[in-house]
Amino acid sequence: MQLNPEILQKLITILGSSYVFIDEETRNHYGHDETEDYIFPPNVVVKPANAREISEILKISNEYKIPTTPIGARTGLSGGSLSIYEGIGLSLERLNKILDIDEKNLQVIVEPAVITQVLREAVAEKGLFYPPDPSSQGSCWIGGNVAENAGGARAVKYGVTKDYVLNLEVVLPNGEIIWTGANTLKNSTGYNFTQLMVGSEGTLGIITKIVLKLIPKVTHNVLMLVPFYKANQACEAVSAIFRAGIIPSALEFMERDAIDWTLKYNENINIKVKDSIEAHLLIEVDGNYPEILMLEAEKILSVVEQFEIDEVLFADTEDEKTALWKMRRSVAEAVKANSIYKEEDTVVPRYELPKLLSGIKEIGNKYGFKSVCYGHAGDGNLHVNIIKGEMTDDNWQTQVPLGIREIFELTVSLKGTLSGEHGIGYVQKNFMDIAFSKTHLELMSRIKSVFDFNNILNPGKIFPDDI
Amino acid sequence: MQLNPEILQKLITILGSSYVFIDEETRNHYGHDETEDYIFPPNVVVKPANAREISEILKISNEYKIPTTPIGARTGLSGGSLSIYEGIGLSLERLNKILDIDEKNLQVIVEPAVITQVLREAVAEKGLFYPPDPSSQGSCWIGGNVAENAGGARAVKYGVTKDYVLNLEVVLPNGEIIWTGANTLKNSTGYNFTQLMVGSEGTLGIITKIVLKLIPKVTHNVLMLVPFYKANQACEAVSAIFRAGIIPSALEFMERDAIDWTLKYNENINIKVKDSIEAHLLIEVDGNYPEILMLEAEKILSVVEQFEIDEVLFADTEDEKTALWKMRRSVAEAVKANSIYKEEDTVVPRYELPKLLSGIKEIGNKYGFKSVCYGHAGDGNLHVNIIKGEMTDDNWQTQVPLGIREIFELTVSLKGTLSGEHGIGYVQKNFMDIAFSKTHLELMSRIKSVFDFNNILNPGKIFPDDI
Repeated sequence: MQLNPEILQKLITILGSSYVFIDEETRNHYGHDETEDYIFPPNVVVKPANAREISEILKISNEYKIPTTPIGARTGLSGGSLSIYEGIGLSLERLNKILDIDEKNLQVIVEPAVITQVLREAVAEKGLFYPPDPSSQGSCWIGGNVAENAGGARAVKYGVTKDYVLNLEVVLPNGEIIWTGANTLKNSTGYNFTQLMVGSEGTLGIITKIVLKLIPKVTHNVLMLVPFYKANQACEAVSAIFRAGIIPSALEFMERDAIDWTLKYNENINIKVKDSIEAHLLIEVDGNYPEILMLEAEKILSVVEQFEIDEVLFADTEDEKTALWKMRRSVAEAVKANSIYKEEDTVVPRYELPKLLSGIKEIGNKYGFKSVCYGHAGDGNLHVNIIKGEMTDDNWQTQVPLGIREIFELTVSLKGTLSGEHGIGYVQKNFMDIAFSKTHLELMSRIKSVFDFNNILNPGKIFPDDI
Repeated sequence: MQLNPEILQKLITILGSSYVFIDEETRNHYGHDETEDYIFPPNVVVKPANAREISEILKISNEYKIPTTPIGARTGLSGGSLSIYEGIGLSLERLNKILDIDEKNLQVIVEPAVITQVLREAVAEKGLFYPPDPSSQGSCWIGGNVAENAGGARAVKYGVTKDYVLNLEVVLPNGEIIWTGANTLKNSTGYNFTQLMVGSEGTLGIITKIVLKLIPKVTHNVLMLVPFYKANQACEAVSAIFRAGIIPSALEFMERDAIDWTLKYNENINIKVKDSIEAHLLIEVDGNYPEILMLEAEKILSVVEQFEIDEVLFADTEDEKTALWKMRRSVAEAVKANSIYKEEDTVVPRYELPKLLSGIKEIGNKYGFKSVCYGHAGDGNLHVNIIKGEMTDDNWQTQVPLGIREIFELTVSLKGTLSGEHGIGYVQKNFMDIAFSKTHLELMSRIKSVFDFNNILNPGKIFPDDI
């Protein structure tokens, strides 16, 4: 599609010519995120300054029925910010301020384009804690975290993004601006629009302000790396730790290959892994009393020692902790650097992890692909990286999607679902029929229409092609 | 309205004649809850056994356009279960089983008519903890807790009902049965129907199974009662405790009158209150390490000692703890026993509590009513009991609603809202315009229509009469 000059002129009138881009380089830049190798450039990229300008743009989108895609940090893994039907790419990058850290109420009001880690550090300086920490926290934005309901390593103890969002300012597709709720910890006042917006992947409205709950900072932690001779036993240990009455602040699983590739990719991480180790758990407990943390660490030790493990590594210094976390957070990048891949974001109740892991391997054998698994095992959230490696293009395109479908069928049969924290976006939408009945998907689609009757906002996402 | 014999016969065919009631006594019994003195009997009371029967009933409701109201334990304070347009009163009392306590995944699957305390005790026997504890926990049902997004004293540390609901089986108004999500701790798969159902007050579907997250049990607590000479200082202390880095497991506020009336109502509670004390805070900390709790209690003491307080009472024994909680939980009943009243469920960010409290008193003076305030101060959730006392009927009916409107305008101006945990139901619906714009209410109303195109399910609730 081509934007006609009349529309372009209207956009320039709203934004000024410095914030409207039609050059190829800019359009390509905003046409991709971290999802595989997809590129879907919009016809025009706009960079509004505030909710009012966004409102004006969306009125034009409705008037001319132009697909309009909100674009964040483009760190997404499900293609949510790709302009798959071209149209207007609406970058939120200028809404990048922390508006108020409210120490009296333990809240922060923030615009969407603030980098998650910047936000976490800013509130930490005031003695406050914003727990959600997606692996991409150094580059992703808080707005995208809300749109995808992002998780991260600390979700296992502290919850995911949705558990911290109190209220949202949203520009609705028709251009009206609302606050979804109130800045309160409790709310039983009408339908929960705040939670309807969280995780709706930019399809129901454009988030322009976010009120987040904070908690008092936590001062200490203990971090340990436990090598398991059997990957399935590592999965079993996850559930056993909780059953022993411990809620770790992180409980991460990494298959052998994930660590090997990461160590190869990051030569300066000095960790040795024995040949016979199949998987590791990275386990953290946190709190304000070091002596209690040692007690909890000992309790965890007594649980994991019931399995076949090698020597446990305790991170004694901040540097060692940073190295271990760097290793964990580099896995995705390392895997990507190694081969063409597809990443699935499976999630099941945590006790079902061993079944999920062995099922994934069997499905891989059946369809001829290798997978590298790692992720937030404490939440039952396993990232499955399917590796192209030596596979033929033909098999990659025909066999792998069948295997992915079987993996999702397995997660759903285990009372799990398709995505724990990455969202459905563009890449998983045609698997939605596995998790939801036709009735259910049609209800979702009608809710989309309530907010967006012309289907102009981020079309082609979440819903399968036949809905 | 009268149900014609044809409809009645169809209901009897589905349910058997033992579970269909048209006698006046039964209809009156199911026609009221704990909301003031309202009675709205349905034309017929039905008691289905399961989701399938509910589905059949709702198909009839749609076919004949019969208002159909789900009825729980009838402990509600907003009139959510009142059959205000008569029709079918659908009691869920036969769906009363705990179906599975899943110790491996720390989850429980439960039917709606299980008493909250029964559920809490059943999971406690397995070493697990379901934190939400509405004051009515001894009689309310978990299904109603989900429908109203109930809170309680422990919400301040552990969150409200919504924070524990993972998945719901729901009979939609058209009779179809769906699960809203998955049994997982994380979920970024489509719109969050689970959270849309929670707090929707039985207007979008009838909940027939609930999957709740549990946590490992917490073994110890310390409870203290702090008498403040000035009520406003008690409110100020609430926010100061959090700013000192403590998250209490309960932080309850009671005005002088609330305690006086309660002690009069419960003569066997042995607590003395000095004449000069205006308010009390009941403060609990919990955890697994008694020595840490003592440290935290001392920290709290050092915070509250910065205000004008009398001697702090520490509950040394389980009996003393039970007495203090009994006192707190009897307040509502005691106030009710004392006078005709209206209860409002205001909620604001916690630092705004002193402004809310003094504003409420000023508004009372202006409109000539007395109020008794108490509630979950840690959450900024203040229950305001407006007392009829000696007020004329005329003033009660004309002045008090004006005063309530001003109280809600005040909460909203403080970034709060109308209800923290009781819901809007029948009694607060005509105040919804204070919290929401017309656009916002119309969106909510259209979402209602997506689920319930004939408006048969719990009509006349939540939405103001002019929407």
